[in-house]
Amino acid sequence: MSERTEVGSLGEFGLIEHLTKNIEFHNASTLQGVGDDAAVIDHFGKQTVLSTDLLLEGVHFDLSYTPLQHLGYKTVAVNVSDIYAMNATPTQILLSIGFSNRFSVEALDEFYEGVYAACARYGVDLVGGDTTSSQKGFVISCTAIGEVAPDQYVKRTGAQKGDLLCVSGDLGAAYLGLLLLEREKRIWMENPQIQPDLEGEKYIVGRLLKPEARKDIIEFFAGAGIRPTSMIDISDGLSSELLHLCKGSGVGAMLYEEKLPIHDDTRAAAFKFNSEATACALSGGEDYELLFTIRQDDFEKLGNVNDITVIGYITDAEAGVQLYSKGGNKYPVTAQGWNHMGNA
Amino acid sequence: MSERTEVGSLGEFGLIEHLTKNIEFHNASTLQGVGDDAAVIDHFGKQTVLSTDLLLEGVHFDLSYTPLQHLGYKTVAVNVSDIYAMNATPTQILLSIGFSNRFSVEALDEFYEGVYAACARYGVDLVGGDTTSSQKGFVISCTAIGEVAPDQYVKRTGAQKGDLLCVSGDLGAAYLGLLLLEREKRIWMENPQIQPDLEGEKYIVGRLLKPEARKDIIEFFAGAGIRPTSMIDISDGLSSELLHLCKGSGVGAMLYEEKLPIHDDTRAAAFKFNSEATACALSGGEDYELLFTIRQDDFEKLGNVNDITVIGYITDAEAGVQLYSKGGNKYPVTAQGWNHMGNA
Repeated sequence: MSERTEVGSLGEFGLIEHLTKNIEFHNASTLQGVGDDAAVIDHFGKQTVLSTDLLLEGVHFDLSYTPLQHLGYKTVAVNVSDIYAMNATPTQILLSIGFSNRFSVEALDEFYEGVYAACARYGVDLVGGDTTSSQKGFVISCTAIGEVAPDQYVKRTGAQKGDLLCVSGDLGAAYLGLLLLEREKRIWMENPQIQPDLEGEKYIVGRLLKPEARKDIIEFFAGAGIRPTSMIDISDGLSSELLHLCKGSGVGAMLYEEKLPIHDDTRAAAFKFNSEATACALSGGEDYELLFTIRQDDFEKLGNVNDITVIGYITDAEAGVQLYSKGGNKYPVTAQGWNHMGNA
Repeated sequence: MSERTEVGSLGEFGLIEHLTKNIEFHNASTLQGVGDDAAVIDHFGKQTVLSTDLLLEGVHFDLSYTPLQHLGYKTVAVNVSDIYAMNATPTQILLSIGFSNRFSVEALDEFYEGVYAACARYGVDLVGGDTTSSQKGFVISCTAIGEVAPDQYVKRTGAQKGDLLCVSGDLGAAYLGLLLLEREKRIWMENPQIQPDLEGEKYIVGRLLKPEARKDIIEFFAGAGIRPTSMIDISDGLSSELLHLCKGSGVGAMLYEEKLPIHDDTRAAAFKFNSEATACALSGGEDYELLFTIRQDDFEKLGNVNDITVIGYITDAEAGVQLYSKGGNKYPVTAQGWNHMGNA
C-alpha cells in the first residue's frame, strides 16, 4: 500500500462502484446483482438456503495480525461453510461493511481482493450489500444464499442411534494458530524490535487466517451417493457442535479420543504451549470442518477418502455424550467452544 | 424495564432461544427457520429478491431518543422497503445484532418486540441471524428476502421519456423530526431539568422513529394492473434518489415544486426551524416512500388514490434533472441526500 486514497474522495456511491466494478457472476440464477434496491435470483425447482454472520473487529478478528485480504477471504469462506453444512451449494452472497476513516480505499481494495478470490473459489456471486462509516473499527456482515434439490438439505436434527459420527479434515489447528499470534502480538507490543517467530507454524497460522469451507466434501457426498443423516460445521469447537447435534437429534454419542484427527504440526504446537492436543481439538474454534453422521450402510461408500475420519457413533440420548479416552476411561463431553457472548 | 437480566446469565445459545421462542411463520415457503446452520426456503416458480442493511449506533440511530422497540420495527421496515421498491413481496428476514454489556436481556426483548411487530405487519418470517458481543455500541444487520413472479420485478433503470414521475405519501417529515430530536437532545444535555418539548410534533417524530414501508402501494399496483417502469425507495432524499433513477435509466426529469407532497405539520416544523419545506422534501432522508415512474397510459389507473402524487415527468437525458420552482424558474437538481460516507 504505497498510495492512500481517502474514501471521502469517492463518496459512497463512487466507492460502491469502485469496489464492485470487477464483479463476475458464476451462476445463471443471478439475474440482478449490485446496483438496485435488491438483488434478484431465479430458481429452477430448487430450495433456497440462507445463512448470515456478523463479524466485529476486536471480537472476531484482530487487524494487527490479520491481513485484510485474508479477512475478506475468510468472511466468505465462513459464511458458505454454513451453506455446505446444509448439504447445499452456495450461489450468492450479500456483503455489508462499516469502517472508520482510518481505512483507505487501498485497504478496502485488499479486503475485497480476498472476497473476490473466495467468490471465485466457491463459485458464488456477490449480489448486494451496504457500505457505511463507523465511529470505530471494522464491521462485517455477510449473508450467503445457496440452493439444494427439494428436501435434500441436511439438518442437525436427523442423527439416529447406530449412525457413524464423522468429521472432515483435522481439528484444533486454528485455535493454536490464534494462541501463537496472540503471544507474538504481546511480545511485539512489549518490545517492537522483536520480530514475530512464526518459523514452522505456517500450518496452524494458515488454518486460522485462511480457512477453507469444505466444498469438496459436499461434492464427494453427491458423487458417492451419500446423504448424511445430520450435519453441522465446526465453528465453535467439536464439543460444542457435537452437543448441538445430539440435542437437536435427541440422541447421545460416543467419541473416541484416539480417532480425533489432529495434524502433526498441531500436536507440536500444543506441546510448545503446554496444551493437550485433544483439548484443542475438542474445544478450539474456527476449524470450519464438517461434523456429520451417516448410516452404517453408507460406511463402505466412504471408500479411501483419507480426509474423512469416523470418530465415534450415535447412541441413545440416555447414554449422554461421552468421550472414550486413550486411557480407556469415559468422560462426559462439555461445551467449551468459543462463546463470544461470554466475553460480553 | 424494572428488571435487568444480564445477557451472560443466558449464554449465547440460551439468548437465541429466548429471543426466538415466540417466532411465528407467515409464509408456506419457510421450510426451516432459526436453529440450524442456515434457513431453507421453498419456491413455487417465483424469483427471489434480496436486500441488506447495516445500521450502527451513533451513525444511523441515537439510542438517547430512539426507543428500542421502535428501532426494531424500523430495522425491518427499512429493509422490506427495498423489497417493495422492486415491486416484490418480502417473505423472510435474517437479523444479526452485536451489543455491548450495557444491554440487558430486557433491552433486547424490547428491540425484538418491535422486530416481531414489524414481521407481523409485513408478513415476513425471521428465519436466521447471528448474535455477538460488541466492544461498544449496538450493531444491526438485516437481510430481507422477497419473491416476485418471473421477470415482474421493477428496477431503477426502466424509466422512459414521457413517463409520469410519481411519489407515495409525503416528504421531508422524518428529516425535521431528526432536527427536532437533535435540538431537544442538545437542550437536555445542557440542562437536564428541561423536559423535551415535542408538543404538536408527533407526526414528524413518528415519521423518523417509526416509518412504514409502503406495502399498500405494491398491493395497489397489483390490484390496479400497474407495473411501474422504474422504482426506488427514498432513503437518502428525493433529489438523490431521483438522480439515481435518471442516471440508471439514461433519462432526465422535470420536477414541479408546487406538486411536492408535504404534510402541514412538516411545513409548520420547517417554518420553526427557519428551513424551506421544499428543501426538506428534496434533501431530507429516511422518508421510505416510493419514487416511481409509470407510462402515461396508466395515469387513469391511479384513480382516486390520494396517497400517490404525480410530481413531474421524464425527459431526455440532455434536458438534465430539473426543478420547476413555484416562481417559474428552473434549477438543476443536485444530490443533497444524507450521505453517511460524508461523515466518515
